Amino acid sequence: MSEIHIRAAEAEDVESIVAMLADDPLGRTRESPDDPAPYQAAFAKVSADPGQLLVVAESDGEIVGTMQLSFIPGLSHRGALRAQIEAVRVRSGKRGGGFGATMIKWAIEEARHRGCAMVQLTSNASRTRAHAFYERLGFEQSHKGFKITL
Amino acid sequence: MSEIHIRAAEAEDVESIVAMLADDPLGRTRESPDDPAPYQAAFAKVSADPGQLLVVAESDGEIVGTMQLSFIPGLSHRGALRAQIEAVRVRSGKRGGGFGATMIKWAIEEARHRGCAMVQLTSNASRTRAHAFYERLGFEQSHKGFKITL
Repeated sequence: MSEIHIRAAEAEDVESIVAMLADDPLGRTRESPDDPAPYQAAFAKVSADPGQLLVVAESDGEIVGTMQLSFIPGLSHRGALRAQIEAVRVRSGKRGGGFGATMIKWAIEEARHRGCAMVQLTSNASRTRAHAFYERLGFEQSHKGFKITL
Repeated sequence: MSEIHIRAAEAEDVESIVAMLADDPLGRTRESPDDPAPYQAAFAKVSADPGQLLVVAESDGEIVGTMQLSFIPGLSHRGALRAQIEAVRVRSGKRGGGFGATMIKWAIEEARHRGCAMVQLTSNASRTRAHAFYERLGFEQSHKGFKITL
């Protein structure tokens, strides 16, 4: 496997990130990569929020993956800070090579470094390969995830 | 059903909130209501974070419920802001009276008001009555929820 370098995303990375979000069975139904404006606006909000960390993974000078970490303070679990992972993607053609596992392990280390007591994520019920992937990395499928669209 | 008033939590409410978190089959194994220090420290972090909204519900001058909303910006779903609900509790003895439904409907309205495109939450797999409750309120159980303790 090639070396991987994970870093905070910059405005110049948004196009690559959106392309990865859209190149996905669920993403292609809900993303609009030809219209960058809402993504750049969202990137500005993410960047301005110290509780958010949007990252890209690079290998051989190319962006091969992305994910977003959210750090959520709360009272439960004795005032635990929790980390949440959203929007994990590895670029088509780069999957199956271990980049995803490296990214998630990096996220867990970053969460530990920031003092989080847990890392959580949800995965669409249709993504059964992803579920096995997270379980191999030590996650427990302990919860049901509910959403309502407004 | 009595009137319910939902408002942002204040430092003076932390003891009541922690009592509700602890008075729960899962909460009693992981909370320490006799040690307020970590909860007050966490409350300070929640209050200082504009992406967090910890609320209490009052009825007849008593606190009857709590929940935390997190507002999470992100690139996916065309740069959608999402609201997440955590740590929902209705006080023992006050359950079954509609307070929980009123709180969740309030959370959905607050999310809409802030421009969120969706509201999401997870519920422990053991809380089967809660799952039916969220489905009655219009949530779709579309995801699997994974956690890892650090």
